[in-house]
Amino acid sequence: MSLRTVTLLGATGSVGRSVRDVVAENPQRLAIGSVVAGRDAEALAHVAIETGACFAALADEAAGGALKQALAGTGIASGAGRMAVLEAVARPADIVVSAIAGAAGLEATFAALVPGRVIALANKESLVCAGEAVMARAAAVGARMLPLDSEHNALFQVLGAEPLDSIRGMTLTASGGPFRSWSAEEIARARPEQALKHPNYAMGAKITVDSASLMNKGLEVIEARFLFGLRAEQLDVLVHPQQVVHGLVTFRDGSVSAGMAVPDMRVAAAHCLGIDGRLDAPPARFLDLAAGEPLSFERPDLERFPALGLALAALAEGGAKPAILNAANEVAVAAFLAGRIGFPGIAALVAEVCARDCGGFGTPRDVAEALAIDHDARRRAASLLSQARFTVT
Amino acid sequence: MSLRTVTLLGATGSVGRSVRDVVAENPQRLAIGSVVAGRDAEALAHVAIETGACFAALADEAAGGALKQALAGTGIASGAGRMAVLEAVARPADIVVSAIAGAAGLEATFAALVPGRVIALANKESLVCAGEAVMARAAAVGARMLPLDSEHNALFQVLGAEPLDSIRGMTLTASGGPFRSWSAEEIARARPEQALKHPNYAMGAKITVDSASLMNKGLEVIEARFLFGLRAEQLDVLVHPQQVVHGLVTFRDGSVSAGMAVPDMRVAAAHCLGIDGRLDAPPARFLDLAAGEPLSFERPDLERFPALGLALAALAEGGAKPAILNAANEVAVAAFLAGRIGFPGIAALVAEVCARDCGGFGTPRDVAEALAIDHDARRRAASLLSQARFTVT
Repeated sequence: MSLRTVTLLGATGSVGRSVRDVVAENPQRLAIGSVVAGRDAEALAHVAIETGACFAALADEAAGGALKQALAGTGIASGAGRMAVLEAVARPADIVVSAIAGAAGLEATFAALVPGRVIALANKESLVCAGEAVMARAAAVGARMLPLDSEHNALFQVLGAEPLDSIRGMTLTASGGPFRSWSAEEIARARPEQALKHPNYAMGAKITVDSASLMNKGLEVIEARFLFGLRAEQLDVLVHPQQVVHGLVTFRDGSVSAGMAVPDMRVAAAHCLGIDGRLDAPPARFLDLAAGEPLSFERPDLERFPALGLALAALAEGGAKPAILNAANEVAVAAFLAGRIGFPGIAALVAEVCARDCGGFGTPRDVAEALAIDHDARRRAASLLSQARFTVT
Repeated sequence: MSLRTVTLLGATGSVGRSVRDVVAENPQRLAIGSVVAGRDAEALAHVAIETGACFAALADEAAGGALKQALAGTGIASGAGRMAVLEAVARPADIVVSAIAGAAGLEATFAALVPGRVIALANKESLVCAGEAVMARAAAVGARMLPLDSEHNALFQVLGAEPLDSIRGMTLTASGGPFRSWSAEEIARARPEQALKHPNYAMGAKITVDSASLMNKGLEVIEARFLFGLRAEQLDVLVHPQQVVHGLVTFRDGSVSAGMAVPDMRVAAAHCLGIDGRLDAPPARFLDLAAGEPLSFERPDLERFPALGLALAALAEGGAKPAILNAANEVAVAAFLAGRIGFPGIAALVAEVCARDCGGFGTPRDVAEALAIDHDARRRAASLLSQARFTVT
């Protein structure tokens, strides 16, 4: 088997770390080519040196000097700013891992879609904000889209070559987050450090807060809609605290195929990176059902977790609404983490932004339109935020 | 879609009933052609009339007259004896359901393998006793083998088109049977009516006793070995009392695909019969994980359930041993049901027969050799049975 080159967008985040682990475990089959991160020059330089990358790029232009300095004498080329990120994406690679967090990952993901390439997608906003455009582009150029999120990866694997019309529905599971068993009153008083305690995964702050509100699962449902081409009403969510079953496909005849694995992002990463045949996992990464606690499932409570309901409504409405929901949520979560609003303020702000009309926008036809919708919704969310009723009381 | 004709071998048993239900639910896609049963003329006549079959055959030649009488004036042709069964198999059909219980189903299953046909296999003895010969024949003539047992059907579905070398192992689940939580002393005193209380399925007496001893799961592991072409050490068993997860495929990279469904044989039957696309199940046949109890898993206890260990040892040894094990078990279970031996006597008798040499027999190359091995082992089991230490004390 030939050595496959991987470009890693979002190299310093939790998904990036998982991908680096899997590449390091398989040096005869995988090598890192380029690495991209947001603004942490020191962390990216460290990753570039550790992985033997030949090019490193930061999205933040102002941090370019620090990156160059940190890589001095290593022979690793570097750059900073939008064009440097696009250069990293354009460099030759068999696999591009798209793991930049948030709407910021949209342009790079779109640019990564070139003929014959595999895109391992962890940036869910690409599909939430511009799902139809991204999937159409991937199909048109012949890029292969593999989902790197545990839930979508599980669904992708168990779906196999089954025709869409044999599917009754798909279920994504959610851990339920740290507030799963909290009362509405307790959740109303939740502080950022409590929302940041994910039961199973160590991830970035934004996605961890989204897991606590269940907005993350809502965004994943929207992502699944576009990734798999199902109708909105075919998708649902079950809370499953053990996070062993990641996704279930229910067929018309009553058969159900479930994708399972230990709650470790490296399993999905290994699946995406094993494009010439599955990679071997170390023994500790295999599931031992007899050793674990029983697997339990419950319906999500949309009263205590209204963000999930908002996401499902945005999906049902379609058009620009999913992108608007996502933008408002990014603003709201940042405000919550900054102590400007309470936890219920996140859903309240998103609800208020989503309740307005779409400012004339329809389904985004390309990245530029998706980014315009995103920008407009952020502005409206920020303006609402400045109103007294959204501040912490 | 054109109407598909189904020949139903084992029409009056529990699998036969499930298949009839699915055919009746889909009259525009499926029709029963011929029906075959063992010796109950009245039951078979009833089934033939109800399903609109055009030919009915009993294996028991002596019951032919009763069958003819019961079908008088219906226009349904009938026959009895070995040649009548083979005539039913030879009649035109798109799908042959092989659900005759025990080694008795071997010859008919083998004869059913004709070019282009789908064989929905529930007669596990075909693969246990002559697995290599049956699979080689199916491949040679271009017959498509679909497993109808819930466990194998689940594994078949989640395996999809994955290459064998991507698989680390397969797990079959077992209910654990009525004695799952009994002590060894309690099991030693178990009476037939207690062994016949299966927690989830209403099935024939033989297979229900096999479920209580876990011999059934051992036979299924042997069946899976030949059906999927894995090595013996890649197969294992987990006890899973809820019987919602039927089988799991673990891939080399740590991903696990699980086949699930309500514990209802009609789900697997519908999968096998949906050869032009999945059939629609009625709403009650869909799994509701949130409504059920948590899914628990435990390793089987080979001390209390030695029959499973005997089966795994026979699989590891290979050659004629699986067929010998199966024959000895059929004799032992009949003796237990007749009150001649106690429950632990089943495994004891099988162990004793299996401990002897194979009488010069190797891996059976065809049905005739498999039946010769079966006949020889039955004779030896019966002779051991007549010894005082195997009788009830």
